[in-house]
Amino acid sequence: MIQFVKKSCYILLFILTISCVSILSKTLKPDEPCKRIILYYHDILFNGTDLANATSAKVTNDTQLGSHFGMMVIFDDPMTEDGHLLSPPVARAQGFYFYDKKDTFNAWFAYTLIFNSSEYKGTLNIMGADPLAEKTRDLSVVGGTGDFFMARGIVTFRTDDFQGDFYFRLQMDIKLYECYKT
Amino acid sequence: MIQFVKKSCYILLFILTISCVSILSKTLKPDEPCKRIILYYHDILFNGTDLANATSAKVTNDTQLGSHFGMMVIFDDPMTEDGHLLSPPVARAQGFYFYDKKDTFNAWFAYTLIFNSSEYKGTLNIMGADPLAEKTRDLSVVGGTGDFFMARGIVTFRTDDFQGDFYFRLQMDIKLYECYKT
Amino acid sequence: MIQFVKKSCYILLFILTISCVSILSKTLKPDEPCKRIILYYHDILFNGTDLANATSAKVTNDTQLGSHFGMMVIFDDPMTEDGHLLSPPVARAQGFYFYDKKDTFNAWFAYTLIFNSSEYKGTLNIMGADPLAEKTRDLSVVGGTGDFFMARGIVTFRTDDFQGDFYFRLQMDIKLYECYKT
Repeated sequence: MIQFVKKSCYILLFILTISCVSILSKTLKPDEPCKRIILYYHDILFNGTDLANATSAKVTNDTQLGSHFGMMVIFDDPMTEDGHLLSPPVARAQGFYFYDKKDTFNAWFAYTLIFNSSEYKGTLNIMGADPLAEKTRDLSVVGGTGDFFMARGIVTFRTDDFQGDFYFRLQMDIKLYECYKT
Repeated sequence: MIQFVKKSCYILLFILTISCVSILSKTLKPDEPCKRIILYYHDILFNGTDLANATSAKVTNDTQLGSHFGMMVIFDDPMTEDGHLLSPPVARAQGFYFYDKKDTFNAWFAYTLIFNSSEYKGTLNIMGADPLAEKTRDLSVVGGTGDFFMARGIVTFRTDDFQGDFYFRLQMDIKLYECYKT
Repeated sequence: MIQFVKKSCYILLFILTISCVSILSKTLKPDEPCKRIILYYHDILFNGTDLANATSAKVTNDTQLGSHFGMMVIFDDPMTEDGHLLSPPVARAQGFYFYDKKDTFNAWFAYTLIFNSSEYKGTLNIMGADPLAEKTRDLSVVGGTGDFFMARGIVTFRTDDFQGDFYFRLQMDIKLYECYKT
């Protein structure tokens, strides 16, 4: 009888554990990312003459509010593993940003990272504010597809370089905390 | 005594199971969608004269980068259950897309599906890239309201038809993998 | 022996409970929000002269489709705890909206709430449709950072006031149903 109790207890525990784990095939890791990728974003704004090199273009004009308030840029920018513009891109960033503050430079981004490399195939969808004056800025990874199926997380922006009005480089530190695939 | 052990074990397991399940009243199904809806999206771009029929309008112009790069369209488009434009719409798609690539047609979408039918009341919010050259393209369902409370998932786009610059139809295969309500 | 069974049972249950809870350090509460914040959004559209007061500006023009269809506004708006425009803002709303319907006023929003107060530091990212004719409208909170790390939820809009074309106030009832931090 004791043996029976012991056995049935173990069996029930086993079933419960399995069912608990199978429901949770999505991994939730609040303490450390289930995946982390650091990439560099290069934006070369079309200046009216460099058609061959430009990766983005202005679609709305500055308003009178100042600090480029209201200027929107649509981009198809290369993402590289190091900070060199001419390194082979491992992804493209496609989307837009605009400036939205009167008294300082402050941007807002929504875009998709499209991976099509030997390492990753799929996309990550990202949106959030980019207050340039802060050393680091956090945006949200709100979804993903392919190898990033249903992912969620945080992207931390760091300004890595800027040269006048027409080139800037951001380090994007992508940390996923919800992964269906790992 | 044995009976007591047995009973208390069962009771504890029961409590644990219930609490586990009640915490997880959200259904996570990575293998198959908890809900699937296939709809057709009809976009009739205003050509300057067809005010009555048009469902969308251009708000920014093409830049010099080519392939309509920079052209943004705001839409309020009917969604039908079959591919016929004149079928009764079961939802509206409200949002925008723009073209963002120099050398080929490539779009980016953010929009809301608004359901107000006998079957569904509520919304689904969607964003992602639409590289038209691919046969199928996956975007993210990043949230929902009403009957789609807190939903997440994937929408697969297939180009179903296009007629010149002013009409195109997409099949949108909506697969939800996180459902609070089923 | 009975003691051993009893003990081992309790130990196993304890381990299982702990592991179950640690995996689920994210709180899913479909029935009631894990956090709720009610704030008021004030939008003062630049009218060409009130540079000092304006918090938003038009970046694209109305199309011929009517009801401001196609007009897009970029904003950096104060959020207050009560309905008074001059109350100290507890957050900023940065993003954009546009009008997207021919026959009635209907808007679409994507924006970030940026908190930098003694109470909260962090952001919430929000998108969705705003059909103004409805008394309440639900949008999606699709992500968060800082104190709102990885949050998801619903924002309910209520039009609280509007004065002509250049000022309106929305009550935003923010209900988070997924909280990593509470």
